[in-house]
Amino acid sequence: MLAQFQYQELIERALREDLGTGDLSAAIFPAKAVTQAKIYAKQAGVVCGLEITKHVFKTVDSQLDVISLKEDGEKVEKGTVVLEIKGSVGSILSAERTALNFLQHLSGIATATYEAVQECQGLPTRITDTRKTLPGLRMLQKYAVRMGGGQNHRFGLYDAVMLKDNHIAAAGGIGPAVELVRKQIGHMVKIEVECESLAQVEEALAAKADVIMLDNMDLATMKKAVAMIDKRAVVEASGGIKKGELRAVAETGVDVISMGALTHSVQALDFSLDVGDIKALTKERWAKEEKSAQ
Amino acid sequence: MLAQFQYQELIERALREDLGTGDLSAAIFPAKAVTQAKIYAKQAGVVCGLEITKHVFKTVDSQLDVISLKEDGEKVEKGTVVLEIKGSVGSILSAERTALNFLQHLSGIATATYEAVQECQGLPTRITDTRKTLPGLRMLQKYAVRMGGGQNHRFGLYDAVMLKDNHIAAAGGIGPAVELVRKQIGHMVKIEVECESLAQVEEALAAKADVIMLDNMDLATMKKAVAMIDKRAVVEASGGIKKGELRAVAETGVDVISMGALTHSVQALDFSLDVGDIKALTKERWAKEEKSAQ
Amino acid sequence: MLAQFQYQELIERALREDLGTGDLSAAIFPAKAVTQAKIYAKQAGVVCGLEITKHVFKTVDSQLDVISLKEDGEKVEKGTVVLEIKGSVGSILSAERTALNFLQHLSGIATATYEAVQECQGLPTRITDTRKTLPGLRMLQKYAVRMGGGQNHRFGLYDAVMLKDNHIAAAGGIGPAVELVRKQIGHMVKIEVECESLAQVEEALAAKADVIMLDNMDLATMKKAVAMIDKRAVVEASGGIKKGELRAVAETGVDVISMGALTHSVQALDFSLDVGDIKALTKERWAKEEKSAQ
Amino acid sequence: MLAQFQYQELIERALREDLGTGDLSAAIFPAKAVTQAKIYAKQAGVVCGLEITKHVFKTVDSQLDVISLKEDGEKVEKGTVVLEIKGSVGSILSAERTALNFLQHLSGIATATYEAVQECQGLPTRITDTRKTLPGLRMLQKYAVRMGGGQNHRFGLYDAVMLKDNHIAAAGGIGPAVELVRKQIGHMVKIEVECESLAQVEEALAAKADVIMLDNMDLATMKKAVAMIDKRAVVEASGGIKKGELRAVAETGVDVISMGALTHSVQALDFSLDVGDIKALTKERWAKEEKSAQ
Amino acid sequence: MLAQFQYQELIERALREDLGTGDLSAAIFPAKAVTQAKIYAKQAGVVCGLEITKHVFKTVDSQLDVISLKEDGEKVEKGTVVLEIKGSVGSILSAERTALNFLQHLSGIATATYEAVQECQGLPTRITDTRKTLPGLRMLQKYAVRMGGGQNHRFGLYDAVMLKDNHIAAAGGIGPAVELVRKQIGHMVKIEVECESLAQVEEALAAKADVIMLDNMDLATMKKAVAMIDKRAVVEASGGIKKGELRAVAETGVDVISMGALTHSVQALDFSLDVGDIKALTKERWAKEEKSAQ
Amino acid sequence: MLAQFQYQELIERALREDLGTGDLSAAIFPAKAVTQAKIYAKQAGVVCGLEITKHVFKTVDSQLDVISLKEDGEKVEKGTVVLEIKGSVGSILSAERTALNFLQHLSGIATATYEAVQECQGLPTRITDTRKTLPGLRMLQKYAVRMGGGQNHRFGLYDAVMLKDNHIAAAGGIGPAVELVRKQIGHMVKIEVECESLAQVEEALAAKADVIMLDNMDLATMKKAVAMIDKRAVVEASGGIKKGELRAVAETGVDVISMGALTHSVQALDFSLDVGDIKALTKERWAKEEKSAQ
Repeated sequence: MLAQFQYQELIERALREDLGTGDLSAAIFPAKAVTQAKIYAKQAGVVCGLEITKHVFKTVDSQLDVISLKEDGEKVEKGTVVLEIKGSVGSILSAERTALNFLQHLSGIATATYEAVQECQGLPTRITDTRKTLPGLRMLQKYAVRMGGGQNHRFGLYDAVMLKDNHIAAAGGIGPAVELVRKQIGHMVKIEVECESLAQVEEALAAKADVIMLDNMDLATMKKAVAMIDKRAVVEASGGIKKGELRAVAETGVDVISMGALTHSVQALDFSLDVGDIKALTKERWAKEEKSAQ
Repeated sequence: MLAQFQYQELIERALREDLGTGDLSAAIFPAKAVTQAKIYAKQAGVVCGLEITKHVFKTVDSQLDVISLKEDGEKVEKGTVVLEIKGSVGSILSAERTALNFLQHLSGIATATYEAVQECQGLPTRITDTRKTLPGLRMLQKYAVRMGGGQNHRFGLYDAVMLKDNHIAAAGGIGPAVELVRKQIGHMVKIEVECESLAQVEEALAAKADVIMLDNMDLATMKKAVAMIDKRAVVEASGGIKKGELRAVAETGVDVISMGALTHSVQALDFSLDVGDIKALTKERWAKEEKSAQ
Repeated sequence: MLAQFQYQELIERALREDLGTGDLSAAIFPAKAVTQAKIYAKQAGVVCGLEITKHVFKTVDSQLDVISLKEDGEKVEKGTVVLEIKGSVGSILSAERTALNFLQHLSGIATATYEAVQECQGLPTRITDTRKTLPGLRMLQKYAVRMGGGQNHRFGLYDAVMLKDNHIAAAGGIGPAVELVRKQIGHMVKIEVECESLAQVEEALAAKADVIMLDNMDLATMKKAVAMIDKRAVVEASGGIKKGELRAVAETGVDVISMGALTHSVQALDFSLDVGDIKALTKERWAKEEKSAQ
Repeated sequence: MLAQFQYQELIERALREDLGTGDLSAAIFPAKAVTQAKIYAKQAGVVCGLEITKHVFKTVDSQLDVISLKEDGEKVEKGTVVLEIKGSVGSILSAERTALNFLQHLSGIATATYEAVQECQGLPTRITDTRKTLPGLRMLQKYAVRMGGGQNHRFGLYDAVMLKDNHIAAAGGIGPAVELVRKQIGHMVKIEVECESLAQVEEALAAKADVIMLDNMDLATMKKAVAMIDKRAVVEASGGIKKGELRAVAETGVDVISMGALTHSVQALDFSLDVGDIKALTKERWAKEEKSAQ
Repeated sequence: MLAQFQYQELIERALREDLGTGDLSAAIFPAKAVTQAKIYAKQAGVVCGLEITKHVFKTVDSQLDVISLKEDGEKVEKGTVVLEIKGSVGSILSAERTALNFLQHLSGIATATYEAVQECQGLPTRITDTRKTLPGLRMLQKYAVRMGGGQNHRFGLYDAVMLKDNHIAAAGGIGPAVELVRKQIGHMVKIEVECESLAQVEEALAAKADVIMLDNMDLATMKKAVAMIDKRAVVEASGGIKKGELRAVAETGVDVISMGALTHSVQALDFSLDVGDIKALTKERWAKEEKSAQ
Repeated sequence: MLAQFQYQELIERALREDLGTGDLSAAIFPAKAVTQAKIYAKQAGVVCGLEITKHVFKTVDSQLDVISLKEDGEKVEKGTVVLEIKGSVGSILSAERTALNFLQHLSGIATATYEAVQECQGLPTRITDTRKTLPGLRMLQKYAVRMGGGQNHRFGLYDAVMLKDNHIAAAGGIGPAVELVRKQIGHMVKIEVECESLAQVEEALAAKADVIMLDNMDLATMKKAVAMIDKRAVVEASGGIKKGELRAVAETGVDVISMGALTHSVQALDFSLDVGDIKALTKERWAKEEKSAQ
């Protein structure tokens, strides 16, 4: 769960992009016109971003009532209503697009992650994201990966170490590279080594890397690497592995498959907002009317 | 062209996501180690975001030299080098991922736009984006659409008016809706009306809408609408129109096709950074050595 | 209507200017001292900024009760009370100056606009602002113009095009200039051409400019221009037109008169805050006392 | 002198208001088109804001060359050129309006202050501003007052104490009020007491107020107050004192006259930007050409 | 008293340092697990920062109930409970460290100030801070000094003048320096002169300095200076004066002793948070259970 | 090494605290007065913060030349000059206090860390910080710990897991707690378990904790724990361990000792700024004069 203060600034930034100096079309609605709106899925998937979406509406108008009918990470079918909003029509429509933009993107990520996880069902292999995220959206994108059933790889260059070819070349080998960096980092930081060959895997094991990444290896080599590592390090497979290829990779015995596409090439999950009858009443009177109509 | 002050804050936000409290692996490089790196395309497309990418490197280390070999909007082939960076290895690798994340996303948009524009080649129909953008990235995404050869639809609710079903219902018809809003907005603002039927198109024409949107109409109906409008308003086709369907729509005679997918479901264009030899020299000495080696 | 998130940052900025590290004189009031204060007009005019003013008080102390007795755009006479505030004396006085600074400036704009609109009463001509606004205050100033009965000209260089002498010279004439820019901008953007002569008006018409500005023309020439344009474009008169001259200009038949002075040379409308009895009680006890006194 | 970091944020805020997502008309100029522009006064006055104006241009395009021909606080005549700008035409015109908005407002303040100071020429009385400033602009407005030859009253509630009727009432008199506040504030803070009668002046003297404000007194009473105070405190006259009335007030012997109108009701000083020939050259080539033409 | 808007940004900044992209360990608690926690002192001192600490918890989770049992500036013993927090266990523990970091630092300052003030008990000498504060924390640190019974020296270079050796040298003596600066600053600003000898004290008196600082003088010289000044200026002693030396200095008759160590070398006052039983209930049900158990 | 963009905002925040609306005393220096200043240590220690200090001066005045004579982490003696600054006297003195405040605090931390590291010299035990840092300063404080020869513990709740009594209680034991959290976090995150008894150490080992913290154990128990763990986990000693006690703890064989006091109770290291001759010249002329004088 994220706290509101962690994303409120992004909500306001997004609203500024859309509302700018004011919604020119909002003037069409009488100030007192109220309604009840629903957001529903237009395709099946995993919903994510409900709390954020709710705060988009509340930021535009703190008087809006917003109720989640689902929780982040739940499956939705075409037609499933996920949010209900009640209050000023003008406010609801001013917030609509920004709200949906959050919801569609995050649900798109959660859905793609969920499908990847499903492909490996029954196997212990985990699906993770990478640092290939969209500028300004990393925290939310990685949250959506978790909601889809995946786990997070490191968040950045600051919370874990991955040694790649350039680091290894500069240090003169995997051994010296690991040793050099271990001397400087704290005792709470893990080190992963990117390996392109079994020889490198051997070196990484000797250097006591916490995690070994098998970079762009074929299935057979991966299997050998897994055997060679024999639980002495966590094993991660990486390198443009796509949906449909995941299960075969998982069956080599790797612990983790990381997928850049989960966050760098996101297919939005389609949601829509439906406005009910518009009534020229205060919210209170309207609520009363509705009650008596039941 | 965007000015640096318009996106510098986003660059720093993105760098904070990746560098956080510091690049733990940068320590592996001697402070004086310098190199020359290249960013090249791993697939064909249209490049976009070079100036921003350059400023990502300069923000991490103002001593880096960065040269663009292409301009935004130019086509690249697999292997085309688009940027060269020279200076501290540690700085280059600290900036790498963030730089590529900008470049890949914006080039993905420019490429998809370019393909859409190509599909309509020879016809006067324009391709535009929508407000279905990613939170915090709208200005850049819309810039990428222009670099791909498209034009921008309105930027938000503040710079033009689009009247949809709810506005029309609330005002009691297209005519009253247009009149109501025209009274309140300034004389520099255009009004578009979303029409779902030819009857609505008729109403919108009568109301002197500047732009008429044909929402989810079939080709035959669109053709009739175009004939009915007869240049008295700009005609926009919209509603989930996909690649492969664009030319047929364009041939109905509509002026504009708007595509939400250009910005809400972006396929990244793949780029990679290659580091050359790493030398434990100052930039000046290294430059000299290189020269004498020529 | 503006949403609070659109101006809250400016409120805090303004309060930081005045409160800085703390109100040194607030210490004089016992923590529990409460009062009821009123803000009233010291001269007749049109009030604007009540909602913002209210949030100034709430930002200083969320426990203050603030009630608007008027709405933005309403006329006030000398002595009219527009806001009542109840709660901690210290908080009310800490917020006073900042609150009044907003109210006086925005009401000054609304009042001057109202007077300009009144001068043209009965004629269809509209009064608009320009981009000659004060740094950081444009959105609020343009809101005040609307509350005074005016409309807004474009908000900036981003939401509409105005082609002036330099653009025309660079493109080689009005025709090429309009064509050049129309090719690049989206279909939702209007183009205005600044004309200094009837010959230029002719060119602008030929180029199908949406709006034609008559720049610094005398009344006779304006009349000719209006006749020549004959409803084929919106006509705007501009160029230092002052109060007292507006009606004559409006009678030439122009659609719009734009006035820079509305926002660049604002005469504040005077308001004052009056504090009632100060009681060393909690708000609750005080409310009770007052009640029993009735 | 202000440092750039103190106002750079305001410059960017102002530019965002005007440039938003980009200058739509800038596209009309070829990327390489350069020119030389001048900003000149359209009326006589005191110029202020040159350094800030310069940074507006540099923020839009760091490649622009900007030279001040005057310094803040200098007098200008109608036609006096105050700034020269050289570089991209598109950049210059994108920055123009924002630059002038700063310059006109600050020069308006400096000019009005200068006129007030002139009115008291030869007398020791100083002219100061008040806290009646425009939201977000206080630091700059007070800087302009200094450049016009005035001095600054306190900047806010945090850097000095002014005891008014409410403070006095709450504390039970001027004596107790001064004592109460003096006990709590630091030894570097001055205390001013607002007096509406000679009796209050007496009290304030007894309480050893550092500054005594004569609030809305007539000239005769002021003269008596000055005599009574006899240099034991600084004497300030206040209360809607206007141009034309200043000298008479100064001649009563008060040390300071404070004027709210200097900052709350500012008349802009008119400046204009003139663009020279536009050349489709790089700045370097153009510079060369110009040289050889000499 | 500070208003929340004055420090809320710092709270969020501090929380971002600690929570970053999310509390990894919070996942261990069921979403509905609630508890009641207490913050208590682990050593005797003066508590400060309760309101801020409270807002740290509310920022993490606005549903938490937080009650202060003490007020800033009150004395606490080892074991004294100062705050009670009720609500989600996960939220409480996510906020704990940041909350304590504020409380411990500010209480450390208040306690050290209190001890300094106690050392001078019965004498009129005041204890003040300096500008030797920690970056970003000055307003809070100076607030803590007041809560400990001290007063604030100037807040910065902007609210009062202190003339030191370099100013004096540049102006050519204390007299010219005071005169030069007095001409330029407003009438609400005090001037202090740093004196290293009795001769300088004489000069400062002649120049009518408001405050005279005796810089690093021995007790005997201070006594002479106090006699020489004879109430004609406020007298401040400064220069690394430590606890244990204060009373002797105060007895020389100086009005103020300023101590840099109060804010530049702060010893935290130890506080701890204790969590009660954790219950897997909603807050409401739990409250009911507790009630019925009484 | 930190990049400037990581702390520039804090520099400006700190400068705003000190300069506010402007340095009132800077007016004393002629605009062209230049000088050469030196910052030197007033006591022995380890210097830290030179790059930041340099940028404080450059932010106040980008024309200042600032040269570091030392690097962060180097030892200094009383009198060692660490920075030289050349340029406008006014600018140098406006920046002085803020610059020193950074330098003194960070050098204080580096020095205390260095002393702790020295106490364990020859032993493999590392000294680390904790999350007991000052609000807003964590990144810099932890940088200073590294410069003093220490390593960093986790930066926050987001980059590693520490399971304490409450987590363990909620999960029903160390085993379930570790398992629960491991299921949810990514494979790049380490888990530490806080143990108060040997029984708990046993449990933590069984759960395969990466790091085991011995909380407030006596030396004999620590020794037993180290033997029991036998390199199967990293061992950290914690709990108010002070200077003078470190070596004895290190000799028990623990890998890491964490010390909250390094960052929560910092003793500033004293530095001072000395201004040389003040010359009323431009920097260029002065540089020439100096040269010819050599």
